[in-house]
Amino acid sequence: MKYFVNVDMSELKIRFEEVPEKYRKMGGRWLTSQFVYDEVPPICHPLGPFNKLIFAPGIVTGTTAPCSGRISVGSKSPLTGGIKEANAGTPAAQALAKMGIKAIVIQGQPKVQNGYWILRIKGGSGSLEPAEEFIGMGIYEFAERVKKKYGKVDFAVIGPAGEKCMPAAGVCFNDKDGRPYRYAARGGLGAVMGAKGLKAIVIEDDCNNSSVTVVKQGNFKDGRRKLIEALRGHRMTKPGGLLNTYGMSFLMDVLNRIGALPTRNFRAGSFEGAHKLSGEVIVEMIKQRKGEGTIGYPCHPGCIIQCGHIWPCPDGVEHVDLKYESVWALGANCGIDDIDAIAELIWICNNYGLDTIEVGVTLGVAMEAGLLPFGGHREAKRLVMECAQGKLSGRFLGSGAATAGRLLGVRRVPVVKGQGMPGYDPRIVKGLGITYMTSPMGSDHTAGYTAAAEIFGIGGRVNPLASTGKTELSRYFQSITAFLDAAGFCLFILFAVLDIDDGFRGVVETCNGVLGTEWTADDVMLMGAEILRIERSFNEAAGFTKADDRTPEFMRYEPLPPHSQVYDVAAEELDGVFHNETR
Amino acid sequence: MKYFVNVDMSELKIRFEEVPEKYRKMGGRWLTSQFVYDEVPPICHPLGPFNKLIFAPGIVTGTTAPCSGRISVGSKSPLTGGIKEANAGTPAAQALAKMGIKAIVIQGQPKVQNGYWILRIKGGSGSLEPAEEFIGMGIYEFAERVKKKYGKVDFAVIGPAGEKCMPAAGVCFNDKDGRPYRYAARGGLGAVMGAKGLKAIVIEDDCNNSSVTVVKQGNFKDGRRKLIEALRGHRMTKPGGLLNTYGMSFLMDVLNRIGALPTRNFRAGSFEGAHKLSGEVIVEMIKQRKGEGTIGYPCHPGCIIQCGHIWPCPDGVEHVDLKYESVWALGANCGIDDIDAIAELIWICNNYGLDTIEVGVTLGVAMEAGLLPFGGHREAKRLVMECAQGKLSGRFLGSGAATAGRLLGVRRVPVVKGQGMPGYDPRIVKGLGITYMTSPMGSDHTAGYTAAAEIFGIGGRVNPLASTGKTELSRYFQSITAFLDAAGFCLFILFAVLDIDDGFRGVVETCNGVLGTEWTADDVMLMGAEILRIERSFNEAAGFTKADDRTPEFMRYEPLPPHSQVYDVAAEELDGVFHNETR
Repeated sequence: MKYFVNVDMSELKIRFEEVPEKYRKMGGRWLTSQFVYDEVPPICHPLGPFNKLIFAPGIVTGTTAPCSGRISVGSKSPLTGGIKEANAGTPAAQALAKMGIKAIVIQGQPKVQNGYWILRIKGGSGSLEPAEEFIGMGIYEFAERVKKKYGKVDFAVIGPAGEKCMPAAGVCFNDKDGRPYRYAARGGLGAVMGAKGLKAIVIEDDCNNSSVTVVKQGNFKDGRRKLIEALRGHRMTKPGGLLNTYGMSFLMDVLNRIGALPTRNFRAGSFEGAHKLSGEVIVEMIKQRKGEGTIGYPCHPGCIIQCGHIWPCPDGVEHVDLKYESVWALGANCGIDDIDAIAELIWICNNYGLDTIEVGVTLGVAMEAGLLPFGGHREAKRLVMECAQGKLSGRFLGSGAATAGRLLGVRRVPVVKGQGMPGYDPRIVKGLGITYMTSPMGSDHTAGYTAAAEIFGIGGRVNPLASTGKTELSRYFQSITAFLDAAGFCLFILFAVLDIDDGFRGVVETCNGVLGTEWTADDVMLMGAEILRIERSFNEAAGFTKADDRTPEFMRYEPLPPHSQVYDVAAEELDGVFHNETR
Repeated sequence: MKYFVNVDMSELKIRFEEVPEKYRKMGGRWLTSQFVYDEVPPICHPLGPFNKLIFAPGIVTGTTAPCSGRISVGSKSPLTGGIKEANAGTPAAQALAKMGIKAIVIQGQPKVQNGYWILRIKGGSGSLEPAEEFIGMGIYEFAERVKKKYGKVDFAVIGPAGEKCMPAAGVCFNDKDGRPYRYAARGGLGAVMGAKGLKAIVIEDDCNNSSVTVVKQGNFKDGRRKLIEALRGHRMTKPGGLLNTYGMSFLMDVLNRIGALPTRNFRAGSFEGAHKLSGEVIVEMIKQRKGEGTIGYPCHPGCIIQCGHIWPCPDGVEHVDLKYESVWALGANCGIDDIDAIAELIWICNNYGLDTIEVGVTLGVAMEAGLLPFGGHREAKRLVMECAQGKLSGRFLGSGAATAGRLLGVRRVPVVKGQGMPGYDPRIVKGLGITYMTSPMGSDHTAGYTAAAEIFGIGGRVNPLASTGKTELSRYFQSITAFLDAAGFCLFILFAVLDIDDGFRGVVETCNGVLGTEWTADDVMLMGAEILRIERSFNEAAGFTKADDRTPEFMRYEPLPPHSQVYDVAAEELDGVFHNETR
C-alpha cells in the first residue's frame, strides 16, 4: 500500500490516503508537476492559502539503484510565479519511499499568524507539533536540537529566510550523516513552506521496511547492474573520476579558460582569481588542512559517484560542502577570490535557509548598483547577515535578483522568469542559454545541461559558441532531465548514460522493475516531454508567454570579454524548443 | 509648422523635425501611446537604452478651450512593465503647444554613468546643459534655483527618486504660479527620465505665439462656448460647485459612509478618522489658519473648475496642495488621521519626486508586514525620508507595493499589473474595479472612472455593489477617458459632459476646430477605443495575458467590513471589456 500524506494546515489535520489511481506510476518531478498542475490555481498567490506544496521521492528512490536517493519538491514559485520543482539528494527521500509514502502534500494556511508547526511522520502515521522552540532558529542549530529531541531522524526544514517568506528561501534536508547540507534550493519553496506555517518535517523510520516494492526483480537487478557499470566506467562518474575527485568545482578553471565564467555580475567571462577557487586548489587545501575535511563523500546511502567535498576551516574544523555553483555565485560573480570568505558566506546562506545561487546573483546586482564594492567580502558578509536577521538593509538579498534590480534601479540583471542565472555565461555556452531562457523553471543549468555536449563533448560534441541549430539539443536535454528527476536519479548520472547506451537502458529497466512497466527509452523521453508540457501549460495559465522566454536585454548588446560574444540565438530558435515538440 | 523635438541622450544631440504625417492629428495620450507602440520594443528593459520617453500636449492644449492645459507623458513603465501614459495639468503643456512643439522624444542613454543634463527649449531650438548643480536636489529647491538661473520658466523635473530610477518616481511640472506641484505621477516615468540622464526640461517661451493654430475658428468658438456652459452649469464643476469648494476630498466622507474607503491596507472600508481628513474639515481649517492657504485655485491658465486646495501649516505658511488620493493613500490607507502629518508626508513625496499613491499603498503593505504600526505617522515619515535619501532601510518604498510585497513576504498586496490601487475599494465600487483590473495602465481610477455613475449618479445611476453587467460601463468610461486624454482636457470635465450632451459636443467641436476635422461623438469614442487597443497590443507583446487582468487574490475571499463584500465580478466579465470591443 502506498500513501499520500495530506496535511491541511488550515485545520491542522493529517490524513493518510491511498494514492489516487492517476498518480500511481508517477514519482519525483513527474508527480509534483502533475499534481501542481491538477491542484493549484495557476494565478493564485504563491504565499496564499490556495497554493500547495508537495514532496515526492522518485520512482526508484528507496531501492538499491545507485544514486537514486532524490526527493522532488513542487509548488507554484514565489520567485518566478510559475511552476517549480527543485530536488535534493538525501536519505530523507529514501526513508519516505521505504515507508510507502509516495508524497506529502501540504495545503491551506494556519489561521494563527506566525504560528509554526513540525510535521512528524512516524511509521504509518503523522502528527503536528507546535514548533515554538525552533522558530527563528538557524538550520545548523536545528539539526543539533532535533537530534537531541527526536534521535537520529531524517528531516526537511526551513531557516529564518523561509519563515520570513523570502523568495530565495530553499528547503533543506539532511545528508547521510545528519548534516543539514542538502538543498532543494531554487525558486523559493522554503517561502511556501514558511507561508504554510511548517518549520520542518521530521521523519522517524521505524517501520523496518528495508526497501520499496519491486514488481519485477529481474528487470530491476539487470538495470541496476548496467547503470553501476556505466557509472563506474565513465571518466566523470567513476571512483577517482572528475566528480569524485573535485566535484563540479573542476569547472572553475575550465570555464575561466574558455571565457564562460560569469564574473562581476556577468561583466566578464574570466576572473583573475578563478584558480584560487578551483577544484584542484580546494582539494589540495583540504588535504593540507587535514582535520575534518573530506574529499569525495556521498550525500545518501547508495550514491557511488560521491561528489561531496567538505571544506575545513584553517584550524581543521569542518566548515561547509563547497559546490561549484555556490563558490561561483558568491565568489567569481561577486569578484571575491578568498575561498575561506566564500565558505563563510555559503555557511551563512545554508544556516539561514537561502539559495546560494540566488543570493550570489543578487549580491552581484547590489555590487552593480554600487551598494558594496565588487570583491568586498566583508561587506557581503555583513549584508547577508543583515538579511538573515530580517533587517531591511539586507533583506532584499532574500528576494532575489529581479526584485533587487527593481529596488536598486539596475538594468543589468541576469535573470530569466525572475530566477537568477547560474554560473555559465549563456553568451559563450549558447545551448545552455536556450535552456536558461525556455525552461519552465526559469534560468537553471540543471534543467537541461547541454554544457555536457558543449563543454565536455559528452553525448556528442557541440561547439558552445554556435548560435544556431541548438533547439533540438536543449529540448533533448530538458526531456531526459525531466525523466531522471521523475525517476529519482541524481542528475550526475547523465554524463555516464549519455555516453554509454547500456547505462541508459539500465536506468529505464530499474523503473520497469519497480513499477512492472514495459517502458522503452523512447517512452521515457516522451514522459520527459510530457512533464515539460504540463509545466509549460501551468505557466501559460499563470500568464507566461514567449516574452518570458527571452534573454536579459543587456546580454543581447553587451559583448562579453574576452571573446566579445553577445547572446545571439534567435527568438525563433528559442520558441522552437517547445512549439515543435514531439508529443 | 509643428515639431517633434528628438533628443538623443546617447549622442547628446537635439533635432527639431517636422511631425511625421501619421502623428499630425494626434495629441496627448493618443500620440504618446501610438508612438510607444511604434517605437519601443515591447520587451525592452524600461530603464535601458531602447525605451523611449515622450512628452505630448493634447490636441487642443495651448488654445483657449477651458481646462485644456494637459501634457501626456508616455513610455514603457518600470512599475508595470507595460505601456504607460500619465498626464498632468500645467502651463508647461500650454507653453510647448504654443511653441509648435507636438512632442519631445527622449531616446538613448548617456554613456557617462550618473551623468545628468537639463534640456533647455527656447524658441525654436534646444540645448543640453550639464545638470551637476541640480543632482540630488529636492524639487522645491529645484524650483527656486531654476527661477534664479533661468527666470520665470516652465519645467518638467524629476527628484532624487527619479535619479535613482525608483519605479514609483513621477515627473513633476510647475503650476501657473511656478509651484512644483503638478505630477504625471504614476507608473515610474520619473525613473525612465532618470535612466536617460535627464534631470529636467526647462521651457522658455520667448516666441510670443499667443496660441496654437486653429483651422476652423467658428467650430472652435462654438465648442468652447458649449463646454464652458456645461462646466458652469454642473454641480460638480461650476464655480462654487463641489470640486471648486472641496476638491475631490469631499469623497472622504462619502466613501467612508458607503464603506468603500480603503483603510489600513484594504482591511476595512471605513475609517474612524475619515472625517478629520474630509474636504469639509480641510476647507474649514484652511479658513481658520488664514495665511497662505487657498481654496479653489487653477493649476493652469484657462482652468475654470479650479479644484486646487493649498493647505497652510499651523503658522499660516503655505505647505502643500491636498488632493483626495494623496490624503487617502498616506492617511486612511495607513490608519493615519493627523492631517498635518499627512500633509508633511505628501510634501516629502512631492519634494523627492515620488508618486503619493504608490508610496501610500506601499506603506500600507509595510504596515501589514509589521514593519511599522498602522497609524504610525512618525515612523512613516522616518521611512519616507530614508527612501528619499536612498537608504536601503527605506528605499523599498520607492519600488512600489508589488516589489515591497515580495521583499516583505506579504500576500495582501492591493496591486494590478504591479501598480498600487487608488482610494476606492473595488469590492464596493465594482465597476471601477473592472477598470482597475483591465486598464492597460494597471489599477488606476482615472483610467475609466465609473464611480461617476456608481457613486454620484452622473451619466446614469448604477448600483456600485452590482457585480454583473458592468463590462460595457467600464469600456465606455475607459474609451471616453482615452479620448479626453488625447484631446488634452482635464478628466474633471467628464462630470459635466456626461450629464450635459451639449458639453460633450462642445469638446468634439474644439478638436474639430483645431484640426479641421469633422469628427462626430461616435468618431471620438472609436478613437478612444483605438487608443486602448494599441495600448493593449503593446502590453500583449510585452507578455501580458488575461492573468494580468485579475483581482488581487485576497479580495476574492476576504470580505470587506462593514459590508462583507468580496470582489465577485466574474473573469468572463473582466475579459469581455476588450475582447468584445467595437472596433
